[in-house]
Amino acid sequence: MAPPGIALLTDFGLSDPFVGVMKGVLLARAPGVPVVDLTHGIAPQDVRQAAFALRQSTPHFPEGTLFVCVVDPGVGSDRRILWARGARHQYLAPDNGLLSWLAGERLRELRAVTNADLFLKPVSATFHGRDVFAPVAAALASGLDPKRLGPRVSTLARLPWPTPRRGRAAVRGVILAFDRFGNAVTNLTPGDLPRGARLRHRGADVGPLRSHYAAVPVGGLLALAGSSGFVELSVRDGDFSRRAGARTGDAVEALR
Amino acid sequence: MAPPGIALLTDFGLSDPFVGVMKGVLLARAPGVPVVDLTHGIAPQDVRQAAFALRQSTPHFPEGTLFVCVVDPGVGSDRRILWARGARHQYLAPDNGLLSWLAGERLRELRAVTNADLFLKPVSATFHGRDVFAPVAAALASGLDPKRLGPRVSTLARLPWPTPRRGRAAVRGVILAFDRFGNAVTNLTPGDLPRGARLRHRGADVGPLRSHYAAVPVGGLLALAGSSGFVELSVRDGDFSRRAGARTGDAVEALR
Amino acid sequence: MAPPGIALLTDFGLSDPFVGVMKGVLLARAPGVPVVDLTHGIAPQDVRQAAFALRQSTPHFPEGTLFVCVVDPGVGSDRRILWARGARHQYLAPDNGLLSWLAGERLRELRAVTNADLFLKPVSATFHGRDVFAPVAAALASGLDPKRLGPRVSTLARLPWPTPRRGRAAVRGVILAFDRFGNAVTNLTPGDLPRGARLRHRGADVGPLRSHYAAVPVGGLLALAGSSGFVELSVRDGDFSRRAGARTGDAVEALR
Repeated sequence: MAPPGIALLTDFGLSDPFVGVMKGVLLARAPGVPVVDLTHGIAPQDVRQAAFALRQSTPHFPEGTLFVCVVDPGVGSDRRILWARGARHQYLAPDNGLLSWLAGERLRELRAVTNADLFLKPVSATFHGRDVFAPVAAALASGLDPKRLGPRVSTLARLPWPTPRRGRAAVRGVILAFDRFGNAVTNLTPGDLPRGARLRHRGADVGPLRSHYAAVPVGGLLALAGSSGFVELSVRDGDFSRRAGARTGDAVEALR
Repeated sequence: MAPPGIALLTDFGLSDPFVGVMKGVLLARAPGVPVVDLTHGIAPQDVRQAAFALRQSTPHFPEGTLFVCVVDPGVGSDRRILWARGARHQYLAPDNGLLSWLAGERLRELRAVTNADLFLKPVSATFHGRDVFAPVAAALASGLDPKRLGPRVSTLARLPWPTPRRGRAAVRGVILAFDRFGNAVTNLTPGDLPRGARLRHRGADVGPLRSHYAAVPVGGLLALAGSSGFVELSVRDGDFSRRAGARTGDAVEALR
Repeated sequence: MAPPGIALLTDFGLSDPFVGVMKGVLLARAPGVPVVDLTHGIAPQDVRQAAFALRQSTPHFPEGTLFVCVVDPGVGSDRRILWARGARHQYLAPDNGLLSWLAGERLRELRAVTNADLFLKPVSATFHGRDVFAPVAAALASGLDPKRLGPRVSTLARLPWPTPRRGRAAVRGVILAFDRFGNAVTNLTPGDLPRGARLRHRGADVGPLRSHYAAVPVGGLLALAGSSGFVELSVRDGDFSRRAGARTGDAVEALR
């Protein structure tokens, strides 16, 4: 079944015409198929950031959406390109861990994309987004049977999920990412926290879990259940990242 | 009547997948409705900048366009979300002043968006763009009667417009905003200026109103009637903001 | 014949609503015509960067695509706006050299866009993207006969192409541009290099032409045939621009 739309996730940024050129290929080969930019602002080569962005995004797209993910430091080497089908969506991505953290989506079918008839010619060494991913996505969107992509495979690269550590008095997590507002997204879910716990970061008390930003005064630190289901550390109407000098990987503790 | 398109205005930036996720919801619930990005580059929580960007943009969109505006420091609190209908367009926005400065558009119908049946579930504390604005926009785009959004209301939050001050020899305005090129947009219209007036900023003579950039030598300061109808201060082929060390709120005088 | 799509190339950035407003005009006047963002990240007024971005992009778009290019330091002056038709595509651009470097595309028909009936009124001094380019593009996309744009003209402004210099032992090129990853794009093609040549930049050996990034260790310098057909200097999983302190215009030598 052809996808109802194509969602693009890359580290290409928007200053260069890379994303525009991918869309040119899609417009030429699959006109009329909706194309949505999930984001192109993944930090260069940051596969973990891409995997996390994908995790929090896919549940909101229509069934069958094809996610085309190009964060690909191994481009041009013999790393595989995978097509994967889950219960709800389908994916094209390099086999580098990018598909590790899909939420509630068990991958049911994996194929190595090897059918060079589908690619632009010649295939460049550096821009498989244009030469491989876009034309393959266009072919799938035009109804290509996925069997024609290449052989089934049974394994894919996996990034380990950073599981919170439970101590006697505290649960310890880490900061996974920051958003544009400077909010720090952790690997802790509200269910991980001891009842009535307060959050701590670099020795500073961030308080208990609040229900919304305006629950503290302007400029106050707070913890919230963020929109991706994880606890976030924030400053009301401010930037936690800057205010707290926080970094990815920082420890965050939840103490009773 | 269903809108001919949806225009998105947010402070979400494009690095995170927030805008992409909103578009995923729209693609799932209102496929085929055109979605235009007005801008997602509003500075975080800067409702004034958003109100000004909206003012200069709406006249150029087709009649009936639904503007979905999410610059929303009060997200998750009890601030209202409004739907508003003007003579030409319709709007969804938090009730924080964002709709204060619409150009030539009297708002004729205001409703508080309270019908939770239209929202995603559960509604997060921090991302009403995804959980409220996008599904409500999709419903309107699919023909929902606005009466079903919630009750009519009669007032909305208003930001005061910074009116120029007229003295005996001069008119005094302020810098409202800068654009990407470093041009300073003021609150003065060409009609506000005394005949033959010269503009001044921080003691520097910016000269009289010019007809186009190339009316002064490269590197020269100039004043122009900008594209939004307000006087702008510029440097030919340069960046006024940087060159003049200018800031939002700076006084700008027009003297005969 | 109406174009199958419109591709936009500007230096407007995405922080201001300029691009969004152009799309509003297109949505109002040519609903249903696909609009693709090629890029809006051209540095302000950098016509050379725009010409180079256009060169590497057009071949991948469907036949007949209308490229609307607005990098226009002369806006509001008497510089001409041109419509051009090549063998495969068509273009709207200011007559400032932006169309100089189209790849494999001989321009067959040039017209000065002078028919003010097609423009928004009044035409502003600073935003012809909105007032001229967008409505003219919409008219062409709706089937306007290009003869109605204005008179045929026979010349256009040209930027000289920086041709590599061939010496006895070496070929000398320059860095034309950097991409988002910090890769330096030169004016040398693989065919320009002496057999087995090694590349040098500021005295540092970048090695011979490699087949892909992973051909050197992480952090290593390398030269590659880039996706636009030119030799690029890179750091594996790094940023050559930063690492080598490289600048546009830097000499790059290929020595046997």
